[in-house]
Amino acid sequence: MINKAGRDIPDELLKDGLEVFQGQYYRDGYEYKKAAPKVKGYVQPRGSKVVDSLKDAILKCGLKDGMTVSFHHHFREGDYVASMVMEVIHELGFKDIYICASSLGAAQKSFVPMIEDGTITGISTSGVRAEIGRAISEGKLPRPAMIRTHGGRVRAIETGDIHIDIAFIGAPTSDELGNSRGTGGKSDCGVLSYAVVDARYADKVVVVTDMLVPTPNLPAGIQGIDVDYVVVVDQIGNPKKIASAVLRMTENPRELMIAEYATKCMVATPYFKDGFSFQTGAGGASLAVTRFLRPYMEKQGIQMGFACGGIVEPMVQLLKDGFIRKIVDTQDFDIASVESIGKTPGHVEISTSEYANPLNKGAFVNYLDFVILGALEVDVDYNVNVVQGSDGLIQGAPGGHVDTAAGAKCTIIATPLVRSRIPSIRDRVTSVTTPGESVDIVVTEYGVAVNPARADLIACLADSGVPLKTIEELRDEAYKLVGTPADIKFEDKIVALVEYRDGTIIDVIRKPADLG
Amino acid sequence: MINKAGRDIPDELLKDGLEVFQGQYYRDGYEYKKAAPKVKGYVQPRGSKVVDSLKDAILKCGLKDGMTVSFHHHFREGDYVASMVMEVIHELGFKDIYICASSLGAAQKSFVPMIEDGTITGISTSGVRAEIGRAISEGKLPRPAMIRTHGGRVRAIETGDIHIDIAFIGAPTSDELGNSRGTGGKSDCGVLSYAVVDARYADKVVVVTDMLVPTPNLPAGIQGIDVDYVVVVDQIGNPKKIASAVLRMTENPRELMIAEYATKCMVATPYFKDGFSFQTGAGGASLAVTRFLRPYMEKQGIQMGFACGGIVEPMVQLLKDGFIRKIVDTQDFDIASVESIGKTPGHVEISTSEYANPLNKGAFVNYLDFVILGALEVDVDYNVNVVQGSDGLIQGAPGGHVDTAAGAKCTIIATPLVRSRIPSIRDRVTSVTTPGESVDIVVTEYGVAVNPARADLIACLADSGVPLKTIEELRDEAYKLVGTPADIKFEDKIVALVEYRDGTIIDVIRKPADLG
Repeated sequence: MINKAGRDIPDELLKDGLEVFQGQYYRDGYEYKKAAPKVKGYVQPRGSKVVDSLKDAILKCGLKDGMTVSFHHHFREGDYVASMVMEVIHELGFKDIYICASSLGAAQKSFVPMIEDGTITGISTSGVRAEIGRAISEGKLPRPAMIRTHGGRVRAIETGDIHIDIAFIGAPTSDELGNSRGTGGKSDCGVLSYAVVDARYADKVVVVTDMLVPTPNLPAGIQGIDVDYVVVVDQIGNPKKIASAVLRMTENPRELMIAEYATKCMVATPYFKDGFSFQTGAGGASLAVTRFLRPYMEKQGIQMGFACGGIVEPMVQLLKDGFIRKIVDTQDFDIASVESIGKTPGHVEISTSEYANPLNKGAFVNYLDFVILGALEVDVDYNVNVVQGSDGLIQGAPGGHVDTAAGAKCTIIATPLVRSRIPSIRDRVTSVTTPGESVDIVVTEYGVAVNPARADLIACLADSGVPLKTIEELRDEAYKLVGTPADIKFEDKIVALVEYRDGTIIDVIRKPADLG
Repeated sequence: MINKAGRDIPDELLKDGLEVFQGQYYRDGYEYKKAAPKVKGYVQPRGSKVVDSLKDAILKCGLKDGMTVSFHHHFREGDYVASMVMEVIHELGFKDIYICASSLGAAQKSFVPMIEDGTITGISTSGVRAEIGRAISEGKLPRPAMIRTHGGRVRAIETGDIHIDIAFIGAPTSDELGNSRGTGGKSDCGVLSYAVVDARYADKVVVVTDMLVPTPNLPAGIQGIDVDYVVVVDQIGNPKKIASAVLRMTENPRELMIAEYATKCMVATPYFKDGFSFQTGAGGASLAVTRFLRPYMEKQGIQMGFACGGIVEPMVQLLKDGFIRKIVDTQDFDIASVESIGKTPGHVEISTSEYANPLNKGAFVNYLDFVILGALEVDVDYNVNVVQGSDGLIQGAPGGHVDTAAGAKCTIIATPLVRSRIPSIRDRVTSVTTPGESVDIVVTEYGVAVNPARADLIACLADSGVPLKTIEELRDEAYKLVGTPADIKFEDKIVALVEYRDGTIIDVIRKPADLG
């Protein structure tokens, strides 16, 4: 069946209530009964929840073949927890484990042999990078991986589309009751936002920490009342890699031009006024926008209402300097933001449900005025791909891309026209991550294209000083520079489903015929 | 059937799975699937959730005859919200409404005519004071009121024993998305802890505020993602009555003696060591204990781990002076604590589930070392009554009494031997609120009785300098002073059930034959 993003979703996938993507707001007003975990209540006071080892915790939780376990990715490339837990599960000989991760990357390369030997047979994740991306692309999983957005993962858990049997939550600090925080330890990650839904909806919850602190460890990102066991290990992650993003104040003229255009677009819209809300990324051009916005805000005497998304130092600085009322933080990309959370007034931790869940009563993304997002590919229908390389290999993550694009009043894709001699703007994206209807403006160094559905924005930008082009003109220029991209050949085997945030299927990813 | 507290619970009550009390830890390890609300998801961004009036909100929420609505009591004697909402519901002509309140008192006297005309037909509450206590005692409700502890209310909601259709949550500040806080407004109550469970488990949630603030109002006690509508009214409460407790540093020699004995008991136990946890009340003797503890802590160079319960200025001062690591706050009794929350480092808001729910994975009450509690009556089996006056009228509240008594390692009841010529220590309490097995020490100005089940404590107190007595000696002394109390006559009609925190029935309250 061809879905609303123009993608062919095989009928055999559409069972158990699975539907194809039918538009970004198709499920608006969807009514459901929330999922809920099974809980064992402890009426009688017991002492510490600390157990001797991960093995102990896993056995006490009653892990069985076929169960689902979960992990968060706040430690990013420095995470030791997911591998450490899975290695014990592997040693214990469990099979057919389903992984429900908020993201996976280079830190989980130990999963690959476990996929090969049947320990891991299913994966739900946002990011699928590095070795694990290749293993999934190669079709090594017996069932297709489910690629979910950050908001979509929370939705899937809260609606019961996926049920977590045991959540393993790495925490920089915990007390013996499981009250856990993202700070105060030797491997700080700032916040624990992705794991909040795991703690509340998993049947069993294990906190893994390398810093046991006196009770009570409050205010807690993860509450002890949701935690069954606490395991103390030597090291939960490599602090150098947890917040590794080396922020660069770009001097690249192409990036500066993209940033300048994006800033001019923002300022020209009616949304740029006191209290506006904003999310941007950590790339060179995105960071430059944060820098370029400041004089405009100063001149107009306005303040940002809230900033969200992955937080980095320039945003924290704007908060400290009084240009932002609140940073609503679900992820910290650098040391400065890890150090700021809970200390700088107005820098506040929120859960990922608050951030981006499409099926609660209104997540923060729904109240975004602007979001600036990247893209691997954009097509002439404004569809964006951020998951699959132009070589067919899965090497990306929808993350909050899809969620913020659907929620923001003005969604700006900022991308160089070509990248490593591959055109970013093209006839058709390799796979759709974010549908074109969610995308308002595409900014390249060559010019700015506005989605024809946004005649209001086209009018706003007429005198903004940015070079307006059609998306086809951008594509033509890209093709002129590096040539028309050749079609990649795929086998029939579907290796991953790209789930839209509301639970429908927006695309499928097949095994590339030649993975190099 | 005679239950474990020696009370006769009529068999006809024991249907729909209702059980009699079978010991304080009877349900330890109880496994259940948590309840969950029905939710309508808002995928499409919508603007403000503010509606024009309470009437609007009630109609949009789809209130129907027979539904359950809920309220919290953070505004205490100054609450306008519950009456305001119920008056609109009354005007709209709805009938057979069940009230699920965290407590009710003088501020809800407008409920009485609504009980009489069938608007309100059922009540679940902790406190049943003033006019509403009398109305319930008189049997004006067609079904018995359900008297619940603070922890028991959360349990009942989280297990699904009671389902809230619409929660009305008064909030000193809210933004237009429903992110609400207990501070920052013109009628501050400090925290919104009792309402957290309402927000998470009710199908529909309405925030009622008199101070709409810019978005986002964070950190939020009640999260906007749980809120359907926001109503702005002129005044949610009388700030003078919200935190009205006039703290008195008692000079009453009887209270000072009780406080001195209680302090000596605490200090003589092995639990009095660095990191100990403590809850006390706001009465004269209790406050004096907080004061008397300080030099002992100073001398031993120890710090309290956490303090909980209703918070008052002397506790905040101990925190500020470095004698307490954390105050885990679910209720503020005075202006000083309202002003401290969120400002004094270590003074932290927690939910009532974190505080006292007996069926989560371990509430803070389970980790209490000491609690000092009051009593209307204590009997020779150490059972305590804090709900029913010795005249039979319901004029009290289990509150956190039962929860902390069950959780704390050392539960101390501090009470004068007689009060207004009524003996506090007696053969048999009028009704049981807290079972004797939860009570360790009874302190009066005449002497201290230790529960014989706690031989360890009796040994500790041998050289503590407090006059040890048997509970029978205390009773005899009380009877000698004011005479043996006459039995009150009751009709057969049961007007209220006293639910134990785990959901079993510990006692029933019948209509007094002569209510005066």
